[in-house]
Amino acid sequence: MPSEEWIGQVVSAVKRVLEELEGAKMDLPLARSLIQKVQDRARETGLSVVVAVADEGGNPVAIERMDGAFLASFDIALNKAYTACALRMSTLSLKPMAQPGGQLYGIQHTNGGKIVVFGGGVPLMKSGRLIGGLGVSGGTEAQDSALAEYGASILEEEISCRLTKRN
Amino acid sequence: MPSEEWIGQVVSAVKRVLEELEGAKMDLPLARSLIQKVQDRARETGLSVVVAVADEGGNPVAIERMDGAFLASFDIALNKAYTACALRMSTLSLKPMAQPGGQLYGIQHTNGGKIVVFGGGVPLMKSGRLIGGLGVSGGTEAQDSALAEYGASILEEEISCRLTKRN
Amino acid sequence: MPSEEWIGQVVSAVKRVLEELEGAKMDLPLARSLIQKVQDRARETGLSVVVAVADEGGNPVAIERMDGAFLASFDIALNKAYTACALRMSTLSLKPMAQPGGQLYGIQHTNGGKIVVFGGGVPLMKSGRLIGGLGVSGGTEAQDSALAEYGASILEEEISCRLTKRN
Amino acid sequence: MPSEEWIGQVVSAVKRVLEELEGAKMDLPLARSLIQKVQDRARETGLSVVVAVADEGGNPVAIERMDGAFLASFDIALNKAYTACALRMSTLSLKPMAQPGGQLYGIQHTNGGKIVVFGGGVPLMKSGRLIGGLGVSGGTEAQDSALAEYGASILEEEISCRLTKRN
Repeated sequence: MPSEEWIGQVVSAVKRVLEELEGAKMDLPLARSLIQKVQDRARETGLSVVVAVADEGGNPVAIERMDGAFLASFDIALNKAYTACALRMSTLSLKPMAQPGGQLYGIQHTNGGKIVVFGGGVPLMKSGRLIGGLGVSGGTEAQDSALAEYGASILEEEISCRLTKRN
Repeated sequence: MPSEEWIGQVVSAVKRVLEELEGAKMDLPLARSLIQKVQDRARETGLSVVVAVADEGGNPVAIERMDGAFLASFDIALNKAYTACALRMSTLSLKPMAQPGGQLYGIQHTNGGKIVVFGGGVPLMKSGRLIGGLGVSGGTEAQDSALAEYGASILEEEISCRLTKRN
Repeated sequence: MPSEEWIGQVVSAVKRVLEELEGAKMDLPLARSLIQKVQDRARETGLSVVVAVADEGGNPVAIERMDGAFLASFDIALNKAYTACALRMSTLSLKPMAQPGGQLYGIQHTNGGKIVVFGGGVPLMKSGRLIGGLGVSGGTEAQDSALAEYGASILEEEISCRLTKRN
Repeated sequence: MPSEEWIGQVVSAVKRVLEELEGAKMDLPLARSLIQKVQDRARETGLSVVVAVADEGGNPVAIERMDGAFLASFDIALNKAYTACALRMSTLSLKPMAQPGGQLYGIQHTNGGKIVVFGGGVPLMKSGRLIGGLGVSGGTEAQDSALAEYGASILEEEISCRLTKRN
């Protein structure tokens, strides 16, 4: 007969696993915190951008246009987030493939205009699994890409923060 | 020669006018606080909705899908916010005009599918001037309309809060 | 120190939970078996239909057009599956709301033509959670609806079959 | 007066011709078996792809997304199958013509986004006659093309199998 303590440990271990699984799903609080962090970083360099987050199905969760950002950036950021989910790669990696002569040239037309073929969209991966996509638009391609990559780089940390808070 | 005091009063009066004008423009902080308040209200009644805010040009500023809200609500909320700006009336007021036989029947087809003809979108007016639109989707039409109207009703207060904080 | 037997029970309990969680996700084998069963049922009444299955994000997993089914039914079945996911209700329930004067009249135009407002699409729910959508097109509205409802009604059984086979 | 034997031979010859004509039409069983075989081949190399089959009218018959395949691949595979039918050539052959300066440059825009100009779509020909199209998406262009060509290469065999089974 296992002790109370032992059972308690098993229960909380299972709970942790389930929480981690749950924590590994995109939701509004996670989307918000990623958007906030990317905006903070953009602000540091004087940039105004649109930041969009989609869930693993490519469906948008949240998107914000910083004051002063380009109007066109809304659709672009949204579609970058979608593209990164839908092809599970950054839009910067897709870029060379979509150039004339490239192996995917023309993909910018095949999916109803939702595929963006320049940098600024990155897939959000957790433990090797896609949980969403992040799209940034408003700066140069290099700036948008760097901001999106920054967002992806802090994903683990943001998820951990939330699990910690809940426990 | 005006007194120091008189000059001080003029300066602060001008400052107030400028601040009010500035405060009467839609920007990301205002959009965020409206979205937050509408979400809080929705949560009180157990609803999960998508809330969108557009600026005076009908361009989206921010949109958030609460966890559990319908996927379809994203486009609908976005388009409600647009419609309310673009026609400077609530989508509920537009509704009867867009019915078969109504004076605007068919308007749901003329603008690339961006015109929503059921309740949940309201224009955001400040001192008689359009500063944006608010769209809510996820509940019944009555619920969405009530939430959107609620958002519009707290606009003055939200703007004042911000001016106060800044002073 | 817990007994071997006790540990074995805990392990298999956890395994069951994880398997159930996994089993409750739409995947190609599940989509296929639902499509097959709905086709069998359609054949019994001499019907040729298109059957489509989408995952919880509304993204299509599989779709088949039975020989003799209408060409138009492909898009319709696909969009019915999407609609049922995106609004978490059957397209038959949506129907009255989308009629002239109804609370959602016009929703057939707001989402890029992806919202179907007649019967034949049903959400696929498992333990109260949406795991996908099923769309059927090719018969009368009543026939399509009945076939879709039939598909939803055997969902539990199909998932159980698969879990049993795996154990 | 022809002998019994002679009549028997004529009858079975006519039957064979009719069966061959019938067998040479795309239908759901043929589409399914092609999709299955292409999936099996993809699985051997660890690939997850979307496979689509269209009939001679370019209308989709069946399409399946293997678990883990890109979301974007659904539309792409569907459109590859369409393109191969609609132009009666592989999308890989179309590719050079659609590059800047090529004789069909711009064709990716003329048909509502349904023309794919990179490899992975092949026409399905039987005795010199188009009976459908096959589209594969999910790997590199070379992988998709090879899988699609493989599907086309087993067409004769799949049709023969079915005739044999029926006799």
